[in-house]
Amino acid sequence: MQIINFRKKFDQFDELWSPRIIAQMNDNDFKLVRIKGEFEWHSHSDTDEVFIVLDGQLVIEMRAQTVAIGSGEMFVVPAGVEHRPVAEEECRLLLIEKQGTSNTGDQPGAGKGKVGIPA
Amino acid sequence: MQIINFRKKFDQFDELWSPRIIAQMNDNDFKLVRIKGEFEWHSHSDTDEVFIVLDGQLVIEMRAQTVAIGSGEMFVVPAGVEHRPVAEEECRLLLIEKQGTSNTGDQPGAGKGKVGIPA
Repeated sequence: MQIINFRKKFDQFDELWSPRIIAQMNDNDFKLVRIKGEFEWHSHSDTDEVFIVLDGQLVIEMRAQTVAIGSGEMFVVPAGVEHRPVAEEECRLLLIEKQGTSNTGDQPGAGKGKVGIPA
Repeated sequence: MQIINFRKKFDQFDELWSPRIIAQMNDNDFKLVRIKGEFEWHSHSDTDEVFIVLDGQLVIEMRAQTVAIGSGEMFVVPAGVEHRPVAEEECRLLLIEKQGTSNTGDQPGAGKGKVGIPA
C-alpha cells in the first residue's frame, strides 16, 4: 500500500511502447507507457481497454472513426474493436486493462507484445 | 465510444460526495467525485478501490496508517481494508471500483451510499 506518483514513475524509464505495471486492482493492471509514432493494428477479444492521457496527445484510429485524446481526457476501446494508437509527439498514458493483456492483443505482434514490466 | 473530458464532466455537477459514473470497463465503474470534509469509516469486502487525485489533496485514513495523496498520484485501498477519505479543501477524484459498489461499502451508511449517478 503505497502512494503512486505518475511523474516519479515516468522518471524511472525512457523506453517507448514499453508499458510498466504500477498497480493492480482486482484482476486489472494499471500501466504507464510512453508512446511516440504509430503502433500496429490490434484488438483484445477479452477485455475493454482504458486510455487516460496524462501528457501530450493520443490519436486512436479505429475502423469506423478516429479520435484525438488530450491531457485530462480518457477513452475506452471496447473488447474486440480493432484500433491503432498513434502519437505525433511523445505522449504519456495510463492504461487500464485486464491482467495479463498483451500490447498487441490477439495479434502475435513483432516484439512489441510485452505484457508489462513492473516499475 | 466517446472522449471523456474530466473538467467538462465536473462542470456538470456541484454536489459533494456524489460520485458520477463516467465510463465502464469490463465490470468496473469509473466515477468522478467532488469531496470536502470527512467521510465515514467503511470497507468494501469484494473489491479493491482505486483513488486517482485529479485536483486537490486527499487524505485516506486507515487503521494502520494515513496517506496524503496529491494531484497526479493514485492509491489502491485493498478489499476489506477499513478506510476513511478526508479532504480539508475541495478535492476532485477519479474512482475505479467494481460495478455496483456503494460509497459506504459494507456499512449501511446514512444517505451517502449512492452507487453513482451517470454524468
